[in-house]
Amino acid sequence: MNTILQQWITGQVLLVSSRLMSAGITRDWGVAIHGGAGSIPVEMPPGRRDECMAALKGILDLGVQLLSAGTAAVDVAEQLVTGLEDEPLFNAGRGSVFNIDGEHELEAAIMDGSSLDCGAAAGLRTVRNPIRLARCIMDHTGHVMLAGSGAEEYAQSIGMERVDPSWFDTDRRLAELERYKAEPATLEQEGSTVGAVVRDVEGRLASATSTGGMTGKMAGRIGDSPLVGCGTYADEGCAVSCTGRGEDFVRHVAAHKVALLAGSGGLGARAAVERVLRMMPDAAGGIIAIDREGVPVALFSSRGMYRGRADSTGLFETLIHGEE
Amino acid sequence: MNTILQQWITGQVLLVSSRLMSAGITRDWGVAIHGGAGSIPVEMPPGRRDECMAALKGILDLGVQLLSAGTAAVDVAEQLVTGLEDEPLFNAGRGSVFNIDGEHELEAAIMDGSSLDCGAAAGLRTVRNPIRLARCIMDHTGHVMLAGSGAEEYAQSIGMERVDPSWFDTDRRLAELERYKAEPATLEQEGSTVGAVVRDVEGRLASATSTGGMTGKMAGRIGDSPLVGCGTYADEGCAVSCTGRGEDFVRHVAAHKVALLAGSGGLGARAAVERVLRMMPDAAGGIIAIDREGVPVALFSSRGMYRGRADSTGLFETLIHGEE
Repeated sequence: MNTILQQWITGQVLLVSSRLMSAGITRDWGVAIHGGAGSIPVEMPPGRRDECMAALKGILDLGVQLLSAGTAAVDVAEQLVTGLEDEPLFNAGRGSVFNIDGEHELEAAIMDGSSLDCGAAAGLRTVRNPIRLARCIMDHTGHVMLAGSGAEEYAQSIGMERVDPSWFDTDRRLAELERYKAEPATLEQEGSTVGAVVRDVEGRLASATSTGGMTGKMAGRIGDSPLVGCGTYADEGCAVSCTGRGEDFVRHVAAHKVALLAGSGGLGARAAVERVLRMMPDAAGGIIAIDREGVPVALFSSRGMYRGRADSTGLFETLIHGEE
Repeated sequence: MNTILQQWITGQVLLVSSRLMSAGITRDWGVAIHGGAGSIPVEMPPGRRDECMAALKGILDLGVQLLSAGTAAVDVAEQLVTGLEDEPLFNAGRGSVFNIDGEHELEAAIMDGSSLDCGAAAGLRTVRNPIRLARCIMDHTGHVMLAGSGAEEYAQSIGMERVDPSWFDTDRRLAELERYKAEPATLEQEGSTVGAVVRDVEGRLASATSTGGMTGKMAGRIGDSPLVGCGTYADEGCAVSCTGRGEDFVRHVAAHKVALLAGSGGLGARAAVERVLRMMPDAAGGIIAIDREGVPVALFSSRGMYRGRADSTGLFETLIHGEE
């Protein structure tokens, strides 16, 4: 029983469903990843579909290898999101969308549930892997979050790899910006974020999220991904990463709400994610989460979500739509 | 009974203490303000003590006038924090602390609990009243948060009042930076933020928070104040504004935790604030909150907190330390 749950109970809140937490079989380890939720056409071009599935499988397989070898949850989360950032198919790192000025502004956050340590970066234009900068901010600055030129200066000072902003460009995202500029209301944001949630063999939980934001966003806009509690959260009971229209996940502080309901609230990850998605009926998006039992969860209210789940019982699946 | 509480209960979580929510007398309106918590010396220079108390009384009196006249909670919260920003005694707006580069980077957030609408701005160097910019972001951009040069450009585009960065300077904060540079570990941050929480005559709740951050912070550092859920939060059940070392309030998502415990958790504002401060034993700081019953709460774990409370039953008090 974790500390928060104890405090919750001693505070007169009776948790009749806490038994749910111990009803299942605890996995040695588990992991879920996502490459964004959104209006992903069911009839995808076969080539693109195969590319996305191959990318998800490659990242998920890396997670399996790392976790089987006993790597710590926060290190696995960082490495998987680094891989997803480097994959131009997804909206994070290389392949990020363009803002209304035709520029990229990247953001990311990471959190170690065992210590509540967290790090976040936003407004990045030249840092190749935002999640790695978030990790360094967490480990070395005494701060949680750095943004804009201050974040870039810090990245420079520690020798973090930086790239020309054009490195993030892809023709596909440029075409999206042009469609957005022509008809802002009609552009369906297809896949908005990448993320990973992890339970390691020691039972530690961690989450990480990274994104280029939304096509046509205003310069300086910060979404939910780098905001601790909104797009990214982990404590001793649950690790969470969100994807979808960021503003909705911010106003609901969605990741923290999932973690509290799953852990202290005794619902476990699946019921907690279902509950929070229902609380946001207007917000099309998705949430991945994993609780102390290690069952990876990936649910969404949008048309699709690039996602994968694996655990030590042999589960290994990658999916895009609901019907697979 | 609010919607979230209903969902919580139907979700198998029994709230034995929900009766606490209706045990008291509901006020027509209530308000709490703070000018920061921290290591405020008990033996303050009498002149400074009088100045601080006069400033708090002036702001609180404005709140009483506005609320008695039926002004909406979110408008009251914005106006009170605007007043606190313009008061050079407190660390927000004019009078903000300096970062390690000798510059000011200001940040603020506002939230309307009745709609969950929220707005936030960070990394501001020339916007006279950050809370007013946060409000405009909430009302007009479709985004929740803008930072850095993008936020400044937006402020310029809507004709918001901007000032030379030196306008925020005060000799006292410059001396603090010099002390910090000489001995970083020994500087006690005296008062770190300003904020307001409000319940209006219609029962709507709102909160607002603004700050210059912490003396000697890294360039680009974002604290808890502009982070929805961390330093600032409001929903239908509770409005919350935090002050103290921001990083601690971020990792605990403190404001959202208070609101959930107070509203959905049935504890009411006072018990919820006490609980969350106990959950953060290493974090010296303070929290103001107000719940649906309208009883304003201002509690802290630091040596002192500049604060004031008023409500429609005649309560009107301003305090700095615990023993008054």
